[in-house]
Amino acid sequence: MTAQAAARYDDADFIRACRGQAHERVPVWFMRQAGRALPEYRAIRAEHEFEEVVRTPELAAEVTLQPVRRYGVDAAILFSDIVTPLQGLGVGVEIKPGVGPVVEHPVRSAADLERLRPLEVEEDLAFVMETVSILVDELEVPLIGFGGAPFTLASYLIEGGPSKSYTRTKQMMFADEALWHRLLERLADITLASLRGQVARGASAVQLFDSWAGALHPDDYARYVQPHSRRIFDGLADLGVPRIHFGVTTGELLGAMAEAGADVVGVDWRVPLTTARRRVPEGVSLQGNLEPAVALGPWELVEDRVRDVLRSAGGRPDHVFNLGHGVLPQTDPAVLERVVELVHREGRVAPPSATEAHGTGIGVARG
Amino acid sequence: MTAQAAARYDDADFIRACRGQAHERVPVWFMRQAGRALPEYRAIRAEHEFEEVVRTPELAAEVTLQPVRRYGVDAAILFSDIVTPLQGLGVGVEIKPGVGPVVEHPVRSAADLERLRPLEVEEDLAFVMETVSILVDELEVPLIGFGGAPFTLASYLIEGGPSKSYTRTKQMMFADEALWHRLLERLADITLASLRGQVARGASAVQLFDSWAGALHPDDYARYVQPHSRRIFDGLADLGVPRIHFGVTTGELLGAMAEAGADVVGVDWRVPLTTARRRVPEGVSLQGNLEPAVALGPWELVEDRVRDVLRSAGGRPDHVFNLGHGVLPQTDPAVLERVVELVHREGRVAPPSATEAHGTGIGVARG
Repeated sequence: MTAQAAARYDDADFIRACRGQAHERVPVWFMRQAGRALPEYRAIRAEHEFEEVVRTPELAAEVTLQPVRRYGVDAAILFSDIVTPLQGLGVGVEIKPGVGPVVEHPVRSAADLERLRPLEVEEDLAFVMETVSILVDELEVPLIGFGGAPFTLASYLIEGGPSKSYTRTKQMMFADEALWHRLLERLADITLASLRGQVARGASAVQLFDSWAGALHPDDYARYVQPHSRRIFDGLADLGVPRIHFGVTTGELLGAMAEAGADVVGVDWRVPLTTARRRVPEGVSLQGNLEPAVALGPWELVEDRVRDVLRSAGGRPDHVFNLGHGVLPQTDPAVLERVVELVHREGRVAPPSATEAHGTGIGVARG
Repeated sequence: MTAQAAARYDDADFIRACRGQAHERVPVWFMRQAGRALPEYRAIRAEHEFEEVVRTPELAAEVTLQPVRRYGVDAAILFSDIVTPLQGLGVGVEIKPGVGPVVEHPVRSAADLERLRPLEVEEDLAFVMETVSILVDELEVPLIGFGGAPFTLASYLIEGGPSKSYTRTKQMMFADEALWHRLLERLADITLASLRGQVARGASAVQLFDSWAGALHPDDYARYVQPHSRRIFDGLADLGVPRIHFGVTTGELLGAMAEAGADVVGVDWRVPLTTARRRVPEGVSLQGNLEPAVALGPWELVEDRVRDVLRSAGGRPDHVFNLGHGVLPQTDPAVLERVVELVHREGRVAPPSATEAHGTGIGVARG
């Protein structure tokens, strides 16, 4: 069942690009493609709170489908929140409108950590499993499973909410390394269980969001974070689905994030793809990275910048077009529609023979 | 007077390091060394609001001096706020405790821009001029003048306050480029006037903070921002004082920030100095870049990481030790005291003969 489900989209451009396999057209999807930029999403949110949408399979599936219908993107991503799997595990995580995740009992000591129980995916995340099943039936493009990486999850649990400087998080990391590793290992297991569950129900790829890991020095990332993200990626290896990894301000971490076990590294808009390519080992695909705010400018600018991204990806088969961060709520959906059209029209993967001559290794399928 | 004042510290390690000239001991100061980490600062703030401290020369001078007395750092930096020169110019800028700068009449149109009148430095910033004069008399180390770069100032004026994504700022930048350039030119002139005034009163160096420019793609930085920062640096050139430039998450912009005309580029803690050195042209010094949160960890960690920074600077004469961002309020001042001692004890600039052999160009004095 898993193997069949995973294999269903083996010929899809999105999956082939994740694997660096030859295909013709550059695939495209947008982080946060579901959500506040869409009037059809706002209509649902006028009736239902955010958490209600996430926890009601029919609603979560509907908002996941909305951008696929409207934009014609090459992949859907499960509508969820990074902290969703932590809810109901004993520490009191709530998603407050206009604030973000808020934690009733922040985890700052060994005793606090005791409160956090393991995830029973089929029970705790029954609504996610059901959402994925609905989506896999309805979708005609691959579904990307959604998970939060241990550092980013830890930052919410330790800070008690969103943070600017991650001071308490880093303080625990530096001052109580043993506790830190225990917490991150536990979080890795929670995310791993959630992602395995999503793939078991038919998700064709996964994206692990380490949204805030970019706040770390590369040495700290390597010592305190990478082993735990690796635990997740290694734990997914037998499933054979592409594993995407993304975080903002991660310019100096791109190589290390790839080495954690990602098949695809998502690139922040700050880092030109030509630069990112030098920092990420061959054999790992890149995803990105149009500056999201460009979509607020005139179409001539958008067009130029979409072409810049395509050019900087070099016509290689290992590129998935995306934004360099999530869709901004102020974005006009009509612009994103045109971006998809443009990428589909002009984003061409160079044929193997043409590019082998450039020594780029294109056409040598991996995986 | 200016030339004399500027020349007074020509032999100070800090000034020589900014100029890449031979000296023995690595100089050190800390961004936000004055402020909430210090009990003597909190004692003053218990009696006086932040704005009152900034606008009262005796108080502003006192809090500027506090960290010099306690830490024994090699430079003082004027205690001020990035938006201070914009206050009273017609748009209603206030610094709200716990929030930051808030703008009563955000600048989002040509008509809004009309409100912003030019700075008359001797009148509008009389209190700053007086503070600098007091400091220059009392200090026995160089004083660094303080200014906000046009992009960062514009972000406050356009957003109306602090922002996470700078959406309105980028929207104006992309959608009304002519208005954007007029606004930034005007802001550049305000900062230039403020910095020239500070140097005229005896500041020995200046630091231009483009705190939030790191939110930009390098192409956007080059097109929309760099010309205006260059206007400031060019306008300071005749004064002969070292010009330092800093912003966070600027890893991909370091070269462009140097090329705007900085003599010293401050490096965010995310970017190892060895990496930064490759991105910044020879002839430009580096400042930084201990991860500020390291100071919250055990001393053994702090010690290791201070030595890492010194090692990554390679004993070159063009390094000023600093944090990679401001001092965190939770920092124990005793730790920073020990950091200064350690840098002074172990931070040795390699003698020219030893390093010339490595072909690093060390010992060839610039400027």
